[in-house]
Amino acid sequence: MQLGLSVSDSDVSSFTPLVVLELADDTKAEAITWLLNRIRDKQQNGGAELLVNQLLFPAQDDQKPNPNVFVVGSTLQRLLNGAEDVGLFKEFQDGTMRGFTYANRESFKDFNGDGEGFLSDAECQYIIKHELDTLRAKNEEHVPGYPKLKLYPGKSVVRRLQSKGVLIQYFPLHNKEDLKRLSFSWYKKFKLSLQPLDDIRHYFGEGLALYFGFLEYFTFALVPMALIGIPYYLFDWEDYDKYVLFAVFNLVWSTVFLEVWKRCSATLAYGWGTLSRKKAFEEPRAGFHGALGFNPVTGREEPVYPSSKRQLRIYLVSVPFVLLCLYLSFYVMMVYFDMEFWAINIYNENPDIATSILLFVPSIIYAVVIEIMNLLYRFAAEFLTDWENHRLESSFQNHLVLKVLVFNFVNCFASLFYIAFVMQDMVLLRQSLATLLITSQILNQVMEAFLPYWLQRRRNKKVHKRMRRLMGDKELPLLGQVQLETEMNTYLGTFDDYLEQFLLFGYVSLFSCVYPLAAVLVVLNNITEVYSDAFKMCHVFKRPFSEPAMNIGVWQLAFETMSIIAVVTNCALIGLSPQVKAYFPESDTQLILIVVAIEHVLLAFKFILAFVIPDVPKHIQVNLAKLEFDSLEALKKRRRALGR
Amino acid sequence: MQLGLSVSDSDVSSFTPLVVLELADDTKAEAITWLLNRIRDKQQNGGAELLVNQLLFPAQDDQKPNPNVFVVGSTLQRLLNGAEDVGLFKEFQDGTMRGFTYANRESFKDFNGDGEGFLSDAECQYIIKHELDTLRAKNEEHVPGYPKLKLYPGKSVVRRLQSKGVLIQYFPLHNKEDLKRLSFSWYKKFKLSLQPLDDIRHYFGEGLALYFGFLEYFTFALVPMALIGIPYYLFDWEDYDKYVLFAVFNLVWSTVFLEVWKRCSATLAYGWGTLSRKKAFEEPRAGFHGALGFNPVTGREEPVYPSSKRQLRIYLVSVPFVLLCLYLSFYVMMVYFDMEFWAINIYNENPDIATSILLFVPSIIYAVVIEIMNLLYRFAAEFLTDWENHRLESSFQNHLVLKVLVFNFVNCFASLFYIAFVMQDMVLLRQSLATLLITSQILNQVMEAFLPYWLQRRRNKKVHKRMRRLMGDKELPLLGQVQLETEMNTYLGTFDDYLEQFLLFGYVSLFSCVYPLAAVLVVLNNITEVYSDAFKMCHVFKRPFSEPAMNIGVWQLAFETMSIIAVVTNCALIGLSPQVKAYFPESDTQLILIVVAIEHVLLAFKFILAFVIPDVPKHIQVNLAKLEFDSLEALKKRRRALGR
Repeated sequence: MQLGLSVSDSDVSSFTPLVVLELADDTKAEAITWLLNRIRDKQQNGGAELLVNQLLFPAQDDQKPNPNVFVVGSTLQRLLNGAEDVGLFKEFQDGTMRGFTYANRESFKDFNGDGEGFLSDAECQYIIKHELDTLRAKNEEHVPGYPKLKLYPGKSVVRRLQSKGVLIQYFPLHNKEDLKRLSFSWYKKFKLSLQPLDDIRHYFGEGLALYFGFLEYFTFALVPMALIGIPYYLFDWEDYDKYVLFAVFNLVWSTVFLEVWKRCSATLAYGWGTLSRKKAFEEPRAGFHGALGFNPVTGREEPVYPSSKRQLRIYLVSVPFVLLCLYLSFYVMMVYFDMEFWAINIYNENPDIATSILLFVPSIIYAVVIEIMNLLYRFAAEFLTDWENHRLESSFQNHLVLKVLVFNFVNCFASLFYIAFVMQDMVLLRQSLATLLITSQILNQVMEAFLPYWLQRRRNKKVHKRMRRLMGDKELPLLGQVQLETEMNTYLGTFDDYLEQFLLFGYVSLFSCVYPLAAVLVVLNNITEVYSDAFKMCHVFKRPFSEPAMNIGVWQLAFETMSIIAVVTNCALIGLSPQVKAYFPESDTQLILIVVAIEHVLLAFKFILAFVIPDVPKHIQVNLAKLEFDSLEALKKRRRALGR
Repeated sequence: MQLGLSVSDSDVSSFTPLVVLELADDTKAEAITWLLNRIRDKQQNGGAELLVNQLLFPAQDDQKPNPNVFVVGSTLQRLLNGAEDVGLFKEFQDGTMRGFTYANRESFKDFNGDGEGFLSDAECQYIIKHELDTLRAKNEEHVPGYPKLKLYPGKSVVRRLQSKGVLIQYFPLHNKEDLKRLSFSWYKKFKLSLQPLDDIRHYFGEGLALYFGFLEYFTFALVPMALIGIPYYLFDWEDYDKYVLFAVFNLVWSTVFLEVWKRCSATLAYGWGTLSRKKAFEEPRAGFHGALGFNPVTGREEPVYPSSKRQLRIYLVSVPFVLLCLYLSFYVMMVYFDMEFWAINIYNENPDIATSILLFVPSIIYAVVIEIMNLLYRFAAEFLTDWENHRLESSFQNHLVLKVLVFNFVNCFASLFYIAFVMQDMVLLRQSLATLLITSQILNQVMEAFLPYWLQRRRNKKVHKRMRRLMGDKELPLLGQVQLETEMNTYLGTFDDYLEQFLLFGYVSLFSCVYPLAAVLVVLNNITEVYSDAFKMCHVFKRPFSEPAMNIGVWQLAFETMSIIAVVTNCALIGLSPQVKAYFPESDTQLILIVVAIEHVLLAFKFILAFVIPDVPKHIQVNLAKLEFDSLEALKKRRRALGR
């Protein structure tokens, strides 16, 4: 089986290594022996039936290498069986996507011979991760050599080792050849083209590919808005009078944008076989702890944490903390306004170039402070959510996303809302929006890609030098690669990437009517974002495990909420425009009533639209129905065959 | 197997008859023979494997009885197999609900001996209906004796016969003993108690039981509102000043009411085994027609109707028709206002008792006209939706409900909105609301229960007399029962019942703050409604086939929409109240802005509430997860058993 890694060094590993396991360097020998035995043991005996080998790095003068690094691989047969266990969907002969079963393997489209090349690298690694994660304790009361590392039947061994720091990390290895090919088609050729989403999915899995798909879709969706924005800017339609048209456009755009994305996302997910894939039964998080009790669903003994305690932690600690942070954010905003007035006063007293530049300083400082606050809050939120002790990763994620979104939304947009609706100062709004947007974009690109890249390059050079000094000509590519990748940073998931897009979406959909260049800036940002994100995935971070995803999850909801807020905001901005006010010279009341009425109609229309547009395109609905029909028919046939 | 019907007349039927089939009296003999053979044929040969017998009514002097009436029954074994086919959920030994399988039959809670009494009457009849409906044509090109009645392989025979009028009707027989017991516990004992929902479900199926459950829940939910309303009325808090409190109460009530119902409904549906039951593959409607083509899902040959044609019919005919009807409704409303002014003028000119009674006449006439318009529109909507040629019953129902709801909402409430927000005349609003509500309630009760009952009694007497004259003492209870029930009206489903509750909910949640007695009236109406509905189900209509339902379906959405409109309306009414206006003596603008802001907050709160409150109670979620977990485990075990 050719899984890409050119392992010429057969003395290092007798199989294609796919996943690296790194244990703490002081791990006791009996624990290691036990773990390796469990990983190698047959499935009948409750083992994972995988291949695993130790990697021995040559001793170095300055520092001792970690002796406890292992590579894990698998036989092809085991992987195919594992593909059935994890419920992988693959393309069938007739072009539909079906759940893979080993018995029907010959009927799948790309299955030739013994099935070599049928599973992608990322899929194999995902399967190995699944098998490792579901390697369960049998009758062991604790990890051998660690009497305090308690186990109970059914507990995931890997999670327990991980939560206690014995297992430092496990991650999939890069495949150098595939990576070279992918990075060439993705960001190295200098012509504009669509991203190779299928290749990205092939290499990094569906979750990440969906993020890049969304990034691309969002950028394209912004192009018309940017195109309309440019003449607004160039021909100086800046009397803030003409923005009614732009606000109306915004309104329609933000609704249609998300509805169409749902369909695109369903199409992608169907083609990748994740749309109809059933969610596996979710294991508790690695960090989850509690008194031993019985799981009401499985009936197994496992830690149980009363949900009332969790609720107490949420409502008595987390919620007050978030409110306190929001208060702080408002306080900082007020300080910003003070600075702003101070700068304006200086400018008015003595208007020259120096003071006109000074005008922008408060906004820039504020933008930097916002970013710093977001960053700090992010850590606090993660700590708090972890402390809330959620049993499932999904519940942890939801609570984290909620905390972070609420704060980031207020922190980034509060000042803009204040300027727009309390101060009603459209000139300041425009200036503030531009500064915030540009500053945060620059900061983001630096923090997210260039800084890690620079750090990574320094580290790479050091490792390369060290390896060369040690081994001279005798090159051991696998050892070198593992050494390099072990020290790379871990990619923490798409959270921050989506968050950034969410805030950009907010800037564009909420206020771009007063600063039409916003869309242009976001488009430019996103084009570089694609390249920097692609680069960071390929060369800055460890390869992440593939994450099956059928949609962008909680982010769809977040974007939809934002688009509802956008309708309200845009209607209010229209109501404030001098152009509209001129129609109602006498009565403000009538104007407000009409704006409110229109807003209600638009919101109702939005909901109806969301309801009427099917989330899944027709032809995919047909395919899904076909799948269901076939499984019903098969069930009937089986029953009849059983002699009924 | 004792299924209740006391068939002493073994010469009439050798098995317990459950379902009656009535064919047209001029049906050709060869068609009848063919149909009976298909029904009796073994399942391996594509038959339904049911028992069927002809009923021969003695000839009558004045009119010839229909010779083509058949009763259908089944063996117990066949019914149990059928229960597995339709995916029935029953209570398992451990108290959870599980999909019934014949192989595991002994593990289900109430399964004793050969399984007698395990399935309820309604379930048996539902199974027989399913088996008849899925009796498919094999290689017949047409119905024997009817060259024009084309068939194709896989076409449901019963649906084809029905759509061409050969099969007049088929319906389940009442079970006299069970009915007597049910009607006693339901409405015959004169003490207030909860309805016997489980018995209703047992006899009429889940769909109807859920309706009665909803009716009961709605009535109970209205009690607090009624209790608050009475002192408002008695102590003459009628300066329309104190209604702010009431409006706020309304607001909260209408939100909580529906969220809690979802949980109640899930609890009921879980206990009845319909919550996790998979929907069967939906057959085309009996009336659906089109050119023969291929179904993209099943790959079978069947009529296909291009959806573009249907869209054309909907948008070019149905939508304009609905708009025209809405226009007509507005026109009638304007005529009503003219009458109203005319009556007020007469009263002002000459205020005495006669003219003060005259004041109510326009509202009463308008209420009657509204009811008549609703009725006429209902027929038109049904005709149009039928003409739109929807393939599935569910799609037909959705389009029908949408059409009827939009019109009924406008027709019933337009005048009230006009009085409240355009004329801002709270006295007239109150008077108009009271008249509309009371008149429509009286009309409804008469039209829905008393009129059909009266007609039914006349018919019953005639049939009884005829039977007695013909047979003298030789009583044939089955023949008599079939004769009676064949001539009963068919119950057309819960549509009209839900519609009535929907409109009552509208009156209460939208405007009851100006007429607090509305809730009292609705409670009184609903108490009699329970009795009259129960009575009509037991004695006026044919027994309907049981309809598995996991919730109240599209009506949940309709009620939720109404509750959103109620939030908006109540906020606006609060804004109009003199009490609130007094706080903002100078600026209307500020008042409006504050009301709008509060409204937005409330709507947001409502959505968050709907999102946060789980639709399914915790313990049922656990049970559902357990079910899923067990099926996953079983799958794993089976795979391992297959030698993997």
